[in-house]
Amino acid sequence: MLENVENAVRVAAIGVYVPPRRESNFELLAGFGVDEEFLRHRIGVVSRSVKEENERASDLCLKAFSDLQLPGVDLSQIQIVCVVTQNPDRNIPHVSAVLHEKLGLPSSCMTFDLSQGCAGFTHGVTILSALMDRMHFDHALLFTCDPYSQIVDKRDKNTALLFGDGAAVSYLSRTGTGYTVVDADFGTVPGSSSCLRCDEGRLYMNGRQVFVNASREVPPSVLRVLDRNGLTLADVDQFLFHPGSRHMIEALKKNLQLDGERVPFETVEFGNTVSSSIPIMLKRRLERPDHRQLVLCGFGVGFTWGTCLVRLIS
Amino acid sequence: MLENVENAVRVAAIGVYVPPRRESNFELLAGFGVDEEFLRHRIGVVSRSVKEENERASDLCLKAFSDLQLPGVDLSQIQIVCVVTQNPDRNIPHVSAVLHEKLGLPSSCMTFDLSQGCAGFTHGVTILSALMDRMHFDHALLFTCDPYSQIVDKRDKNTALLFGDGAAVSYLSRTGTGYTVVDADFGTVPGSSSCLRCDEGRLYMNGRQVFVNASREVPPSVLRVLDRNGLTLADVDQFLFHPGSRHMIEALKKNLQLDGERVPFETVEFGNTVSSSIPIMLKRRLERPDHRQLVLCGFGVGFTWGTCLVRLIS
Repeated sequence: MLENVENAVRVAAIGVYVPPRRESNFELLAGFGVDEEFLRHRIGVVSRSVKEENERASDLCLKAFSDLQLPGVDLSQIQIVCVVTQNPDRNIPHVSAVLHEKLGLPSSCMTFDLSQGCAGFTHGVTILSALMDRMHFDHALLFTCDPYSQIVDKRDKNTALLFGDGAAVSYLSRTGTGYTVVDADFGTVPGSSSCLRCDEGRLYMNGRQVFVNASREVPPSVLRVLDRNGLTLADVDQFLFHPGSRHMIEALKKNLQLDGERVPFETVEFGNTVSSSIPIMLKRRLERPDHRQLVLCGFGVGFTWGTCLVRLIS
Repeated sequence: MLENVENAVRVAAIGVYVPPRRESNFELLAGFGVDEEFLRHRIGVVSRSVKEENERASDLCLKAFSDLQLPGVDLSQIQIVCVVTQNPDRNIPHVSAVLHEKLGLPSSCMTFDLSQGCAGFTHGVTILSALMDRMHFDHALLFTCDPYSQIVDKRDKNTALLFGDGAAVSYLSRTGTGYTVVDADFGTVPGSSSCLRCDEGRLYMNGRQVFVNASREVPPSVLRVLDRNGLTLADVDQFLFHPGSRHMIEALKKNLQLDGERVPFETVEFGNTVSSSIPIMLKRRLERPDHRQLVLCGFGVGFTWGTCLVRLIS
């Protein structure tokens, strides 16, 4: 579906912020009646990154931005700022308008937020690429940030061991080395909107339903995208699946019969950072581009998924 | 910028819901020290539509949907549901996932919400058109709904007389008679993110700053879009400006030296419905398509604006 590689929108740089403050999961095991074996092999998260109490999504985004190396572009050229979040500073204004102000961006820059969960990055990068093509834009910033420590009940065994705070910002450009979205596949499981929900500031998760949905929908989605582009699983260098849990990743790996090296799980030390999990992994690939062709797949809130086939271009 | 009219994405049908319950502004005049003359000529809203206490954004969206005449398409073909709102039922999941469930939409349908205010429709229709082109999609639903009665403080003179509740749904298609986005212009005023904000459930508006921003940014934005497409103000049949207030509309009309008939103000009986104000007006044009070429311009929260040049195609 990608027609013009030469000038295609690509993720050319990524900045990341994972709060240095960590809370250990080992301390919580006894209270939840869970052993270390279960923690390591099913959950896969030994400590969670936790933001400062007074930090909001916009603060974490700014810290991710300060990690971004913008290659030969100054801020006056940025044409879109989009923040993917379901934990905004407040609902009005959108977080991107706050970042626009704090970063001193020009009046010609559009701002809007996208409300999407763990599939937020794959939605966002596809939507922004499309919009940039339509508007003939050359420069955009896609932020992801969902500080779940604000909404996770520490006494809730279903969620307390999983999520970490973090933020990422992707610079989308038409030049330089970067990953471009070749094709994508999205969907929403019917009758599944409440498997992840937040009521009165508290997150509820039906972990079983999330697991079943992901196990059922992700593999065919991956195969659809590959098939549509004349590719097979063997043509993909790495599969960056959203790290919902280690058990989740293992199930997907097994279902698709993929070897371990092609399916990384890199969140042991800080947890599931929701929409930032995939760009955090992608940043490492971008900095050492050994991998030419990747499949990114996020899934969660909605229940939705988003699968992107991305290719390294320069 | 529109390359292929034949197959272009167009707004082919619109459904609207404005709650029948009205609250009169006349009763509030004395308390605010405002006279009828001011109400009629500056505010321009004599009564406000108010939803039922327990109704949420998704409920209003469903009522708008029941007003939609879907031409020859069944729901199993819908590929995107997007809700533009800054007053969602809750932050997780997105409202579009709730609608997906309630409307019984298929698993191949993507869902996400856009956080944008009074410029939300122009952002949404441009973003969805772009995404549909990129994904080769044929059918999408774009909802707008921002029930401000939830956040307006009835004692606040700056906001209590202005906003009405409402919802709209636009069906985007590649066939039939409809309005297609030819070109668009977006922006965000630097340092202006707090001119409209919601803190702890209460809306604050710096009316002066909103008025100054709109007066300064909207006219050049309209002229930019026209100029880029080889058009002048005379080529536009109607200008559907977001009805922030009658005074606002009059100021824009005067600034651009437009005659009254080309700049409607149709919210006297129900108020400013935020992102639904433009689709509510557009629905009337779509049902009696006397007007071939329109400029739509929304502006507000952010402070942002979005201007679309749209053209009737069939």
